[in-house]
Amino acid sequence: MKVDGKPYRTIWLAEDGWTVEIIDQTRLPHRFVVERLQGLEAAAHAIRSMQVRGAPLIGVTAAYGVALAMTEDPSDAGLERACATLLATRPTAVNLRWALEEMQRLLRPLGDNARRQAAYERAGELAEEDVALCRAIGGHGLALIEAAAAKKKPGEAVNVLTHCNAGWLATVDWGTATAPIYLAHEKGIALNVWVDETRPRNQGAALTAWELGHHGVPHKVVADNVGGHLMQHGLVDLCIVGTDRTTATGDVCNKIGTYLKALAAQDNGVPFYVALPSPTIDWTLSDGIEEIPIEERDAREVTHLTGATADGSLATIEVVAPGSPVANYAFDVTPARLVSGLITERGVATASREGLAALFPERVP
Amino acid sequence: MKVDGKPYRTIWLAEDGWTVEIIDQTRLPHRFVVERLQGLEAAAHAIRSMQVRGAPLIGVTAAYGVALAMTEDPSDAGLERACATLLATRPTAVNLRWALEEMQRLLRPLGDNARRQAAYERAGELAEEDVALCRAIGGHGLALIEAAAAKKKPGEAVNVLTHCNAGWLATVDWGTATAPIYLAHEKGIALNVWVDETRPRNQGAALTAWELGHHGVPHKVVADNVGGHLMQHGLVDLCIVGTDRTTATGDVCNKIGTYLKALAAQDNGVPFYVALPSPTIDWTLSDGIEEIPIEERDAREVTHLTGATADGSLATIEVVAPGSPVANYAFDVTPARLVSGLITERGVATASREGLAALFPERVP
Repeated sequence: MKVDGKPYRTIWLAEDGWTVEIIDQTRLPHRFVVERLQGLEAAAHAIRSMQVRGAPLIGVTAAYGVALAMTEDPSDAGLERACATLLATRPTAVNLRWALEEMQRLLRPLGDNARRQAAYERAGELAEEDVALCRAIGGHGLALIEAAAAKKKPGEAVNVLTHCNAGWLATVDWGTATAPIYLAHEKGIALNVWVDETRPRNQGAALTAWELGHHGVPHKVVADNVGGHLMQHGLVDLCIVGTDRTTATGDVCNKIGTYLKALAAQDNGVPFYVALPSPTIDWTLSDGIEEIPIEERDAREVTHLTGATADGSLATIEVVAPGSPVANYAFDVTPARLVSGLITERGVATASREGLAALFPERVP
Repeated sequence: MKVDGKPYRTIWLAEDGWTVEIIDQTRLPHRFVVERLQGLEAAAHAIRSMQVRGAPLIGVTAAYGVALAMTEDPSDAGLERACATLLATRPTAVNLRWALEEMQRLLRPLGDNARRQAAYERAGELAEEDVALCRAIGGHGLALIEAAAAKKKPGEAVNVLTHCNAGWLATVDWGTATAPIYLAHEKGIALNVWVDETRPRNQGAALTAWELGHHGVPHKVVADNVGGHLMQHGLVDLCIVGTDRTTATGDVCNKIGTYLKALAAQDNGVPFYVALPSPTIDWTLSDGIEEIPIEERDAREVTHLTGATADGSLATIEVVAPGSPVANYAFDVTPARLVSGLITERGVATASREGLAALFPERVP
C-alpha cells in the first residue's frame, strides 16, 4: 500500500539483492523508519522486538532470516542454528514455525552452495503467496462493500468498523480485514472507516489509523467503547475484523474486545464479517470458548503508555492508579452465531463447520 | 470513605468554619491533594477545571460556592452574580442548576445579614442529603451482592464489574454504583471488583481504582475490551454501573461503553444493575436512544493522555496516529430491555415505566 503516495510493502529485498528492508513498526505512528536487516541476528531481533508483527509478516521475515543466515553460514549447523534462533523469538507464533519448517524442508537436501539462492527464492515466493492470499480475500470482501454501497445515495460513504490491526502492516501487503477496504477505495467507493483504538496496545489508533491515513482512506479513530453507540444510530454499515485463530465450526479468536462489537452488530442488525487466510483455521477445534486458551499478558501494557510529547520526543507514562492490580487478557472468542460470514481467499463462508468444509473440503480432517 | 485508613468526604467545611475543602480530583491518581476554597472564584474554578466532578458533588460545591459568595457580598447583586458565575461553569449540569435555584429560592427572601448563615446551613444539608441518598442506594444494592455471595463457596469472592466512576469521588460519600460495594466490603463479604479503564478519560483506571484501592477493596483494572471475555468465562457475578440520565421507561444514559457491557451481560446471563438517585430520572423521556442527544467532546481526550513518568512528573503524550481524525462520543444509551434492575434510594425497580412509577408515584407527570 502507499505511504504518502509511494508504494511500500512491509518487507522487501534491498537494492543490493541480499539485505532485507522492513518498516520498523515499533517507531509507528510517530516515526516512519525503514530498517535494513544485514544478517540472522538482525532478523531475529526484528521479530523479537516486534519491529515486525502480525502472523503472516513474522513468517516471511523468518524465511528471509534463514536466507540471511545462509549468506553467513550455509552449513547444516548454520541452518539448524538459524531456525532455532528464529523459532525462539516468538515461540507461539504458528506462521513462524510453519515458515521455518518449510525452509528446512527445502534447504536440508541441498548442498551448501545451493542453499543461499534457494532460500532467497523461497522467501520471495512466500512473500508473494501472502500478497496473493490477502488480495484474494480483498476481492471477496470487496463484493460485500459494493453491496453496502449500492444501498447508499451517490457519494454517501459506506461506514466500515474494524478492530485492532489486521492491516497491511500485519501482512506483506493489503492486510486481511483491510484488503476489501483498500480495493473499495481503489474503485472509488466513498468510505469512512471507524478505527477502534484497541486498548491496551492501541494497534488501531497507532497502526490501522496510520496506514489508512497515509494511503488516503477516510477514517475516524474511536475509543473501543464507542462502536455500540455508532451501530445503534445507523452509523456502521458493516464490520470487518481479522482473526488469530478460527475453529472448524467458525468460532473466531481475535484481539480482545472483538466479541463486544459482534454483540452490538447482532443487536443492531449490522453484518459482522471476519477476514481470514485459511491457514489460520484450526481444524482440530470445535468450541472456541472452551478450547482456546487466552493469553494473559504483562500488566504494564495496561498501566503504561508510550507516545509523543509536544516536543516530539517519546515518553512513557503511567495511567492507572499506582498499585492497582490489572488483568490483561489479550484475545477473546466470538461465537460463530454472531459472525455473518468468514471472508477467505476462496470466498465468503458461513461461520459453520459446513460453510468452511464446503470451501476447503481437502482440509477437513 | 477512607483514604489509607482515614475517613474523607469529597467536600467538607474546614476547621475555620467558613472555607471549604475539596479533594483536587485533577491531581488523582498520582497526587492526593486537598484544596481549600476561599471564595466564589475558587469554587467556580474548582467546578470549571473539574477539580470536583460528578453531578451530585458539583451541585454541593455550587451550594458552598454561594455560601462563600455570601461571605464576600451578601447583597441581591452579590447573590445574582454568584449564581450566574457558578451556573456558567458547567452549563449542562442538571444538579448544578438545581442546587443554584434552591439556594436562590432560600436566600432571596432573606435580609443580607441572614444570608451567609442560611447559605452554609443549606449547603451542609444538601451534602448530608446526598450522603443519605447514596447510603440508601447502597443498602438496596447490598442485598443483590449478598444474594450473589450466598451462591458462593465460603471465602470465594463475588465478582462485580463496574464502568467509569460512579464512586464516592463523584458524590459526597459512598458513591452510587460503589455504595453497595463499600457496604458489602464493610460487612466482610469477599469481593473482587473489575474496574473498566473507561477510555477516553480513564475515570475507571484513574479514579475508581484509586478509591477502591485506598479504601482497601480488592479490585482489578481491565481494558474496556475485556468485560465480555470475563462474562463468557463466569468471572462476573453481577454488573453495577451508574447513570447520568434515565428515561421514565428505564433506558439508561451512561458513560460511553456501558451498552456494550450490558449486551455481554445479557448474552451470558449476568445480572446488569444500574444505581441511580431518583433526581437523575427524566420523567419527560420515553425513548433514550431517540431522545437523548449524545455529547461529542474534544478529540484531544482520545488523542492525548496525561500520566506520571518514571521520575514522578506528569507528562502528556499523543497516542493516536498524528493527523488521524477522531470521533469522541461521551455517552451511550442502554435500552431498558438489557437492564436487570434500577437500584434507587427507595429500592430496586424493574427498568420499565411501571417499575419506576411504582417506586415514585408522586413524580409521574
